[in-house]
Amino acid sequence: MRQVNLGMIGGGTVGSGVYHALRLNGQLLASRIGVPIRIRKIAVKAFDEPRPYSIPRSLMTLDWQRVVHDPEVDIVTELVGGTTIARTMVLTALGLGKPVITANKALLSAHGEELFAAAKKNRTNLYYEASVCGGIPIIKSLREGFVGNRITHLYGIVNGTCNYILTRMKLEGADFDAVLKDAQAQGYAEAEPSLDVDGYDAQHKIGILASLAHGFWVKPGRIYVEGIRAITRLDMQYAGQLGYTIKLLGIIKAQPDGTGGRAPRIQVSVYPTLVPNSHVLASVNHVFNAVFVRGDVVGDTLFYGRGAGKDATASAVLSDLADAALDLTAGTKNRVPAFVPHARGGTVVPIRDVVSQYFVRLNVVDRPGTLARISRVFGDAQIGISSVIQPEGRQGGSVPLIMMLHEAPNGAVTRALRRIQKLPVVRGRPVMIRVENFQ
Amino acid sequence: MRQVNLGMIGGGTVGSGVYHALRLNGQLLASRIGVPIRIRKIAVKAFDEPRPYSIPRSLMTLDWQRVVHDPEVDIVTELVGGTTIARTMVLTALGLGKPVITANKALLSAHGEELFAAAKKNRTNLYYEASVCGGIPIIKSLREGFVGNRITHLYGIVNGTCNYILTRMKLEGADFDAVLKDAQAQGYAEAEPSLDVDGYDAQHKIGILASLAHGFWVKPGRIYVEGIRAITRLDMQYAGQLGYTIKLLGIIKAQPDGTGGRAPRIQVSVYPTLVPNSHVLASVNHVFNAVFVRGDVVGDTLFYGRGAGKDATASAVLSDLADAALDLTAGTKNRVPAFVPHARGGTVVPIRDVVSQYFVRLNVVDRPGTLARISRVFGDAQIGISSVIQPEGRQGGSVPLIMMLHEAPNGAVTRALRRIQKLPVVRGRPVMIRVENFQ
Repeated sequence: MRQVNLGMIGGGTVGSGVYHALRLNGQLLASRIGVPIRIRKIAVKAFDEPRPYSIPRSLMTLDWQRVVHDPEVDIVTELVGGTTIARTMVLTALGLGKPVITANKALLSAHGEELFAAAKKNRTNLYYEASVCGGIPIIKSLREGFVGNRITHLYGIVNGTCNYILTRMKLEGADFDAVLKDAQAQGYAEAEPSLDVDGYDAQHKIGILASLAHGFWVKPGRIYVEGIRAITRLDMQYAGQLGYTIKLLGIIKAQPDGTGGRAPRIQVSVYPTLVPNSHVLASVNHVFNAVFVRGDVVGDTLFYGRGAGKDATASAVLSDLADAALDLTAGTKNRVPAFVPHARGGTVVPIRDVVSQYFVRLNVVDRPGTLARISRVFGDAQIGISSVIQPEGRQGGSVPLIMMLHEAPNGAVTRALRRIQKLPVVRGRPVMIRVENFQ
Repeated sequence: MRQVNLGMIGGGTVGSGVYHALRLNGQLLASRIGVPIRIRKIAVKAFDEPRPYSIPRSLMTLDWQRVVHDPEVDIVTELVGGTTIARTMVLTALGLGKPVITANKALLSAHGEELFAAAKKNRTNLYYEASVCGGIPIIKSLREGFVGNRITHLYGIVNGTCNYILTRMKLEGADFDAVLKDAQAQGYAEAEPSLDVDGYDAQHKIGILASLAHGFWVKPGRIYVEGIRAITRLDMQYAGQLGYTIKLLGIIKAQPDGTGGRAPRIQVSVYPTLVPNSHVLASVNHVFNAVFVRGDVVGDTLFYGRGAGKDATASAVLSDLADAALDLTAGTKNRVPAFVPHARGGTVVPIRDVVSQYFVRLNVVDRPGTLARISRVFGDAQIGISSVIQPEGRQGGSVPLIMMLHEAPNGAVTRALRRIQKLPVVRGRPVMIRVENFQ
């Protein structure tokens, strides 16, 4: 039985999590796959950097090059993060023909095509189960489990920080800023929260899933993104009255007019969405992630689990490690290639052409004719109104007006709202949140 | 690019579903894995047997031996069902060194060890993703996705017929017999429903999952089973009042006193269970299946989807087909062996020693002292009562008495209930349903 030697770059939160998990279950893993895995060296930023699990001094080095170039090292993990030095690390290891395991969604999102090409050229492989939704085996499930399916719909709650904030806003009737501040104090949100709350982390992940599902590489610049900063307590409350919960969803939808697998046209976007309370995604709370996948053969499926954190991510890295070790010992490093671009003609539909339903909240003057003037704008734009809530106000004062709109292209609704904003009976900026009924 | 030829045995519901799915998405699958798959022959029971998708006459044969022995056939699917002729078919194909894909949980449950040994001996493989929970990639997720985890808890809603019946009993306040009859009329239950409603189908599936999770083959005879025939409208109603829903769960729990991976002691059982309404499994309705898995590294996860039916099962068969084709062309037919017995010392704990919580429903005489006499029996047995519901009755008449019991071994509770049944104030047989709070 051949032993496989692992060289790790990164010994922080995730790196030390992998070290710990291998110590805990390395023997079990070896007995399951028939290949023992030994950690040979771990490159760290500093010997005493803060880490949740301690790593023996004898395993640590400050020089990542020594890890990668060590001829005894068979497989390399990149658990450093970022898109500059991490890119060099991964390219160096791949250049040496060594399989690389990464949890770095930002790196993949920005440089995926280059890295996959490097893996292919060097007849090795790049494994990235840990890059999307931590412990949920969604990459394996999409790529292998649903290999016989056209993925018509995918909806993902893929950012734990946003889901934590939205869950607390709902349960406590609290506002975004207050919950964010508390989440930062408790370590659920970063001091610089933009990557999470503005949707960029979700954008990276949903781009990877869209690429795998549809067979062409979806670059982050093509993915429309709105974060959750603009969601207020009022929106949450009125959504609740209408039977909905607001979630930040990554959405991937095959458009009906696409020519199928060879040149798919798809929606790929990230935005806050009203989800019916009866839908299972509405019950995914706190830091948990979930991905709802609809395949043309399998029907509706859901995957749920922790999307981040040292342990959940370590579980995914160990899964990749088992695959890499098996591929290495079996001599089939490209058995399941990192990425197979089989639909080069695929395109992402611009958000203005995406059709959805909408929740609109306006601040209006409570005066006869207000509703008529607003409705007329929607009517002129061929946008149907499915329901209206107008809480009792006082004549001449300003009151919220909530409207649910039928399906319409995003562009048409945005234009109509721009006209509505200019009406003298409307105060401030209209709020528009898309609605998903999962049909 | 080498083409792989598929020989199918079974052209009924599942077989024709696989034929249809390959026609629909075969090209897509080939472009994803780089290996085209062609159906060479399908052995059927009768050319004109009823099937949801038609199969061209030219592909069909009545002689399964011709399919298996055809030298052009590289991979064989067994989609016949049953445990006698199916066993011969699978053993014949494996004997010829051909990889076999099966959806046959009963066959695996009864003869798994023999089949796995035959696959190993002939240096080929047996794939069975479709045997458990249809379209949910639970075998792949457990075996590969969670390869770095000790699976401490697994709870599965793995029988769609039972879940459909229990869902309707709950939603409609209906009794078992009425719903069963209607489910039979609608095709959701078999004319002979025992395999489903008495829990045997769930037993087969949960045995396979327990074996994979814990590394020793769990034979069906070791798995305690109770079906759902005894569940009444009243139980559903009182469970609801207490904040619970009744589901048929397959339960696999590592016992705390086990010596870990090498000689695990596990609970493996199938019985109706009170699930808190707030738990995600309580919301899994109708024919859907779900498996909740807790790993010591990954934490809590859930997998949800259609557990049966021609299409969901076909999706799983196609996933296995892709793996088998890749293993075949890469020359690594044993990359992930059918089953790795790595914990030969493992044991299944007898149900009497399993500790759980309980819902007990008695029919008692409404008379002073009744509650005291019943409570005393539990007290003498060191069984704690956590709550009691006794609807208002009329003195001397008979009323239901519902008790929730704290954690206690099954054996102790069964003995106490036997004593309680003999009390003169108790009429008829006590109802006992276990409660799971997922701690």
